Amino acid sequence: MKTSVLSESSAYVFSAIREEDDFAEGLRRQGKQVIKLSSGDPALYYPTPKYIIDAYVEALVSGRTSYSRSQGVLELVNAVIERYRSRYGISMKEQDVVVTSGVAEALTFLNSALMNEGDTAVILKPYYTQYPVAIRMFGGSFLLGRYDESNDWSIDLDALAKLVRGRKATSRRIKYMLITNPNNPTGTVLPKQALKEVVEIANEHRILLVSDEIYDEIVFGGAGFTSVGELAKGTPHLILNGASKAFDATGFRIGYALIPEDDRVSDELKRKLADYCRVRLSSNTPAQYAIASAMNNRTEHQQTVGQMVKTIEGIVESAMKLLEENERFSTVRPRGAFYIFPRIDMRSLDFKNDREFVHALLKEKFIQTTRGSGFGAPNHFRIVALAPRSVMSGCIEKINDFCKEHSK
Amino acid sequence: MKTSVLSESSAYVFSAIREEDDFAEGLRRQGKQVIKLSSGDPALYYPTPKYIIDAYVEALVSGRTSYSRSQGVLELVNAVIERYRSRYGISMKEQDVVVTSGVAEALTFLNSALMNEGDTAVILKPYYTQYPVAIRMFGGSFLLGRYDESNDWSIDLDALAKLVRGRKATSRRIKYMLITNPNNPTGTVLPKQALKEVVEIANEHRILLVSDEIYDEIVFGGAGFTSVGELAKGTPHLILNGASKAFDATGFRIGYALIPEDDRVSDELKRKLADYCRVRLSSNTPAQYAIASAMNNRTEHQQTVGQMVKTIEGIVESAMKLLEENERFSTVRPRGAFYIFPRIDMRSLDFKNDREFVHALLKEKFIQTTRGSGFGAPNHFRIVALAPRSVMSGCIEKINDFCKEHSK
Repeated sequence: MKTSVLSESSAYVFSAIREEDDFAEGLRRQGKQVIKLSSGDPALYYPTPKYIIDAYVEALVSGRTSYSRSQGVLELVNAVIERYRSRYGISMKEQDVVVTSGVAEALTFLNSALMNEGDTAVILKPYYTQYPVAIRMFGGSFLLGRYDESNDWSIDLDALAKLVRGRKATSRRIKYMLITNPNNPTGTVLPKQALKEVVEIANEHRILLVSDEIYDEIVFGGAGFTSVGELAKGTPHLILNGASKAFDATGFRIGYALIPEDDRVSDELKRKLADYCRVRLSSNTPAQYAIASAMNNRTEHQQTVGQMVKTIEGIVESAMKLLEENERFSTVRPRGAFYIFPRIDMRSLDFKNDREFVHALLKEKFIQTTRGSGFGAPNHFRIVALAPRSVMSGCIEKINDFCKEHSK
Repeated sequence: MKTSVLSESSAYVFSAIREEDDFAEGLRRQGKQVIKLSSGDPALYYPTPKYIIDAYVEALVSGRTSYSRSQGVLELVNAVIERYRSRYGISMKEQDVVVTSGVAEALTFLNSALMNEGDTAVILKPYYTQYPVAIRMFGGSFLLGRYDESNDWSIDLDALAKLVRGRKATSRRIKYMLITNPNNPTGTVLPKQALKEVVEIANEHRILLVSDEIYDEIVFGGAGFTSVGELAKGTPHLILNGASKAFDATGFRIGYALIPEDDRVSDELKRKLADYCRVRLSSNTPAQYAIASAMNNRTEHQQTVGQMVKTIEGIVESAMKLLEENERFSTVRPRGAFYIFPRIDMRSLDFKNDREFVHALLKEKFIQTTRGSGFGAPNHFRIVALAPRSVMSGCIEKINDFCKEHSK
């Protein structure tokens, strides 16, 4: 057998979230109406607000179409700084903000900037599917902490502390520790106290703390979101965020990385991330101006995002009610984002694993979801709770029927 | 001294093209009028054509703002296929086309997909600045062929053949061979015969041939551009292109990679590049629809690109006349793209190298260019020939004065 032309690391490059897209597309071509509950994409259901579209059009007709400042146009950089000042009381300078083509690009830059062959990072399972891919792409490996399902998917702090402490004796260098808050795929919003302890662990071991906060505005009544930036003064940290979810503008591909501190690690990293940006020239220029304008328009923004979050909360509520009727599932109630992550009692069903479950659900009921093993949590599956209530309810009822049909 | 937190490979990540941007910005803040002849950005001088802006606006107002097909929306994929069919007689299928956020992203994916630590690629100097960066980012190394300045910067075919043949005996695996046509930074348009011989070398040694053809429509009267795709039937090859230059839409960040063949190497690679696309979800969605529409509107396109190329040719002509008056330079006449790449007789000037030359030119005359060493060709500098004729002439006159002032 001939060896593959591909690199070894490329074997890790795939997307569990999009792995059924081609099969779903095939069903659609056969005339089936497939309902996609696999893409965390609010813009599929809630048109991007008009004031943002208007700002985008304005950028285009006023000629904002050339390459732009690699780390982000200053209008957007300053809007992000103002957002964090007013929302979280965090103060930053121009050079602390790096605009990227989505959080995805920021993750690529971050791992390339930090990972040597043999270096490691701490991520927690269930994790967003790209995290391990981006680490492996650059020869890194990861240590797996965990969110504790029996404790509302909050961080298992003892396990995390043990993991970090235990690793000190070995030669592998932990380059960063990454948390996701609010969480994808569990919808958990981490309590402030847990975050404080994470910051302490990072600080004690001088490990860069990375917090993916892309869902920071998608939080349900009373959950109380805290940004790591509010707690990590004096600790090197990096915050990932972007316009996709809060501004309902997934297709714009505007993300950003923030490094508010000025210690040596933070300084080195922010300079180097700027280099990565320069090499790829710039992000989409008119989209940056559109989001800058949208961020500065706080009245319109509060109104539209408030309405969207209220709607999503209602969808999650009614979906949860129906999921709780299914005795093969147990499901922690999400407090933010727009994901529901039921545990499947696999032994009671005639499937070997969650991959089979999800594939059969698509094939038989034309409902596309994502297998939990793709997030490092087998025997679960992820439902995106963005479709209108009636559609979602119909889907969950079909999922419940599906489970009955496949009971052992 | 504490060791750096950064990865070893990240030391290679920088952009010679943008390295003076911050210094130039500082001069501007002091009230100096800096003329930027360092950015290959037509949209800085020629507004993106109105029919493209209209198509972009149409995509936005009709709600094309969600994530889209990872490898590119089918409208754009099919427009690209039709472009290559009608323009070059190359036939392709949907899966042969991968849309990326600029050629920059395609280069990142390509190198990640192919490079193992110790693998190598053949690039030719002078090279586009990102090529070695993208290779090094993934632990690869490169062998340097050359374009021959004494032969109109065409490929030194003997050297290339020797390089590839010599390497066979060693353990390093050559993963691909990359040429740029029309060339950045030299403006050379490769003769068909030279391309045929490159294809032969690739074919003989079964090395994937990569051709960066982003300037394929910026070709001056009679130069006669040939795409590698026209010659490489039966040889695994990949073509890089995009909307930035021909559609005068740099800030849209729409590039694409084409793999027309169906051999094992091509198949593996196109599948894997699609995986890379899925991991980062999608490129900017409305920009893809805009370019799809622009590509299908051939009448408008021919008119606008034809006018732009004519204008650029005039600028290059008049700049060349003035450059030829400068006896410290010798300059091969460009046949395409919008770059002029004079050789500097450094011994006759009071600078140590091209880096000093370019920096002093910016500091003293407020003209930003790029050092040749950034492209692997010391004792040269790159001028972007896009500014209006009068501005360009003024700049070249100042550059000529500058050389006189710094004569030894």
